[in-house]
Amino acid sequence: MRWTDIGDEQCSIARTLSVIGDRWTMLVLREAFLRTRRFDDFQRRTGAPRPLLADRLKRLVAEGILERQPYGSRSDRFEYRLTEKGVDLYPVIVSLLTWGDRWMPGESGPPIELQHKACGRSMHPELACPECGEWVGARDMLATASDR
Amino acid sequence: MRWTDIGDEQCSIARTLSVIGDRWTMLVLREAFLRTRRFDDFQRRTGAPRPLLADRLKRLVAEGILERQPYGSRSDRFEYRLTEKGVDLYPVIVSLLTWGDRWMPGESGPPIELQHKACGRSMHPELACPECGEWVGARDMLATASDR
Repeated sequence: MRWTDIGDEQCSIARTLSVIGDRWTMLVLREAFLRTRRFDDFQRRTGAPRPLLADRLKRLVAEGILERQPYGSRSDRFEYRLTEKGVDLYPVIVSLLTWGDRWMPGESGPPIELQHKACGRSMHPELACPECGEWVGARDMLATASDR
Repeated sequence: MRWTDIGDEQCSIARTLSVIGDRWTMLVLREAFLRTRRFDDFQRRTGAPRPLLADRLKRLVAEGILERQPYGSRSDRFEYRLTEKGVDLYPVIVSLLTWGDRWMPGESGPPIELQHKACGRSMHPELACPECGEWVGARDMLATASDR
């Protein structure tokens, strides 16, 4: 069974990965969050072969994660922008980045620096409870699967 | 280039996905967070073919994400438990779950319910700034890639 066959599965993690779990797709999303918008820029920054990049962009548009908008005077030129559904993937991307920075650091330090605009500090966002406001980690949570 | 070739790449997102980006690996991690510990339970709950499951568990142990501990009287029986490095993947798993619950809901509702032990509420954790405590989303953050 491939990732793409798993969309019907009940698990939300598996369902999400059936849409974004492909490596090139994730790199395209990383670039979209870094405000890359045009095909040639995606191509140069991800290093993806052009047909493969075209396919991933098309799929992300079909899934409603990116939207295509014409730009300039030529009607065949498009920019790709994150939709609300796409922007909502931010916690996934930032969590992958945070873990990689912490546990698989490269020799040249973290390749992407995150700064909180409001307070100006460099940081990695952390999880908190939207109900009571406390910070939460795995051990603070009770997870109940409905199928067992 | 395959996921597994990307471990040397500079991007922390790509590096993380080179270790956990495989579908079966993610399902094994989901189970580990649901306190599954034994091979047969992982097998039954993920539906992974046994050789494939054995391979993924071996890789997760090699990466220091799971650790093997003997249990019972037979020395050839092991439990698999998350290490600190493994537990630290919680934000990745919970972010995938949250997005899937919100944007790809199944017919029978969210398959995993998350409850905050301290306050007792059902919720999905959200990202906040560890420096100033404010909630943060993609638009509150400035991301700077060192390679451009």
